[in-house]
Amino acid sequence: MFDPQDNVFMLPGPVKIHRRVLDAMSVPSMAHRSEHFKAVNEELRELLKYLFQTDYDVALFSGSGTAAVEASVSNLLRKGDKVLNLANGKFGERLNELSKVFADPTLLKFDWGKSMDLGALEKAMASGKYRAVTLCHNETSTGVTNPAKEIGQIVKKHGAFFILDGITSVGGIPVHPKEYGADVVIFGSQKCVGAPAGLAGICVSPEALAAMYDDTSYYLNIKKHVKKLKEGDTPWTPAIPLFLAMREALRMLKEEGIENRLEKTRQLAEATRAGVEALGLQLYPDPKIASNTLTAINYPEGIKDKEFRNMLRDRYGVIIAGAQDSIKGKVFRIGHMGMCSWTDLVATFGAIEATLSRMDYKFEKGASVAEIVKRM
Amino acid sequence: MFDPQDNVFMLPGPVKIHRRVLDAMSVPSMAHRSEHFKAVNEELRELLKYLFQTDYDVALFSGSGTAAVEASVSNLLRKGDKVLNLANGKFGERLNELSKVFADPTLLKFDWGKSMDLGALEKAMASGKYRAVTLCHNETSTGVTNPAKEIGQIVKKHGAFFILDGITSVGGIPVHPKEYGADVVIFGSQKCVGAPAGLAGICVSPEALAAMYDDTSYYLNIKKHVKKLKEGDTPWTPAIPLFLAMREALRMLKEEGIENRLEKTRQLAEATRAGVEALGLQLYPDPKIASNTLTAINYPEGIKDKEFRNMLRDRYGVIIAGAQDSIKGKVFRIGHMGMCSWTDLVATFGAIEATLSRMDYKFEKGASVAEIVKRM
Repeated sequence: MFDPQDNVFMLPGPVKIHRRVLDAMSVPSMAHRSEHFKAVNEELRELLKYLFQTDYDVALFSGSGTAAVEASVSNLLRKGDKVLNLANGKFGERLNELSKVFADPTLLKFDWGKSMDLGALEKAMASGKYRAVTLCHNETSTGVTNPAKEIGQIVKKHGAFFILDGITSVGGIPVHPKEYGADVVIFGSQKCVGAPAGLAGICVSPEALAAMYDDTSYYLNIKKHVKKLKEGDTPWTPAIPLFLAMREALRMLKEEGIENRLEKTRQLAEATRAGVEALGLQLYPDPKIASNTLTAINYPEGIKDKEFRNMLRDRYGVIIAGAQDSIKGKVFRIGHMGMCSWTDLVATFGAIEATLSRMDYKFEKGASVAEIVKRM
Repeated sequence: MFDPQDNVFMLPGPVKIHRRVLDAMSVPSMAHRSEHFKAVNEELRELLKYLFQTDYDVALFSGSGTAAVEASVSNLLRKGDKVLNLANGKFGERLNELSKVFADPTLLKFDWGKSMDLGALEKAMASGKYRAVTLCHNETSTGVTNPAKEIGQIVKKHGAFFILDGITSVGGIPVHPKEYGADVVIFGSQKCVGAPAGLAGICVSPEALAAMYDDTSYYLNIKKHVKKLKEGDTPWTPAIPLFLAMREALRMLKEEGIENRLEKTRQLAEATRAGVEALGLQLYPDPKIASNTLTAINYPEGIKDKEFRNMLRDRYGVIIAGAQDSIKGKVFRIGHMGMCSWTDLVATFGAIEATLSRMDYKFEKGASVAEIVKRM
């Protein structure tokens, strides 16, 4: 049985939440229009700029990552505006679905888990008809990191706006908004920053902010959010406990140092990939583009998804993810972002070895754990 | 200085949060796509129907009350559709502002704090051009409860949809969706149910659900939310801690019994009004339509808003609200909804008496507190 208070929680988001962050929510009475909360908002604004490593304006929405993606699309585009959506996984495709509601989208689709063909992007952009291009930087569905910088350079060359869904990259994989030509970058609270689910934020370039429509959104109006946050306020009632939690999570990120967090995340990812290889297993995506915030792994023949993950959970208290859509049952995914620790990782591989043994999968016992320990 | 952990918190929302509700959020690891969370969603669905006292479908949005208002308007209306917005306060007017983004609104405006003229509504509806009518049931800005049932009957007679913003009424003032002809009723988490800010929900009539557009919203798509909640799921990542908190708050509402909660809220309101009279003060709104979830009171001559509320807060730890827009500085507001107790109320009036004495306002000492105690 799953014990929410005691386990090894290795999902690609939501991730485990530190006690300091949980305790920050435990406030019985807090007004959002108060001097007290103004200070929270002001600190959050500075911390968000630190997170994004940018001097661009920032905004924080009371809503999920999808809300912030909608904000980006619905403020920068309207019906009649053409947007090119690049996709090599589920979340890129979702961005295209979302765009249908607010703009006139074209989907440039690539195989799941495979590199995007930048020549195809160049060709599409040559038409000159796109006001914006969207990219899911880190595809959580497939464990792939897409080349945001190279794509951004192509987009910028053609004078379009570049919307970068960094929901599972910001705070885990380097993102440099200006250098990447990214006009809007999105992050989600329950991913690399290690806060609870329910908030999402953006940073936005001055050019994109100036080009945003005033009359295409209300709850998710970016200009209003940016303006209010500059005043230490929010346009609507914020999710107060989540704002307090986010402040604490970002304080912890700053105490650790974002460079250290990124480097630790990279090391955990390399150790994970070494562990996978030692088990005789293969990554689902092209290894050249494997993500550093989560790892997607093909099941070996004969190992059933449900049986494997249930045993991991019920016998060892280790929580990992399956996969979605066409690769459901064929792939499992391990998240190693946010506050994930070396001991979490070695515990996870210990439990994976034990579970695979019990399921009669043949491999060199202890080898994957040894690969982790070697790097700890 | 304000102490978030120890005070008498009497705002018209956010309200004080019970320790059981706060503790429910303290879960370090919880996946939203899990059997565990499916049970949370299933229980929430039943509890929401209990809250709304309805068999209509329900949905819960990760967002503020404004998000749920936007959901109602943007799913039921599109550009070209005419909507009539009734307003006798700030939140009614906000609904009109919001409608401008998604539909073609007409504002039928009445004086703040005064009754709506139902003859004017009849006359407007006779044009037959409105697809929907919106009403802010309980105007938090002015402390007024509008006659939802009577208005709903007029709206229904003319075959329009009726959107009822019950953000500060549902759970505090009787609301009967079907009897009132209300097609969508909205509630906010940080009001009468005593949960933290950041969630809002609706119930929706079968007719309205069937008439909703599929392509006018994404994050706030009501059909998707209703369908997913029936499966124990959410379309996007929910604000996990807030869902857990909402479940606990609604469990507490059910344990108390909604009839008891409504009756207690009514008694607290009557006691508040008696206390106000004993102080020689006057309600801001027409007393015939004064709200039972909050009370708006005119400042007597010579009492400065900031000085009064700062002394209440800093000397006695009592938090009440000022007012907004044109009545800012002229009116103060006391919330008495949710888990507000008799001892909270008597403490508040004790502090108000002490503060008014210190500010040299003349009144019969002890009289307002005696009025509260008489009713406890």
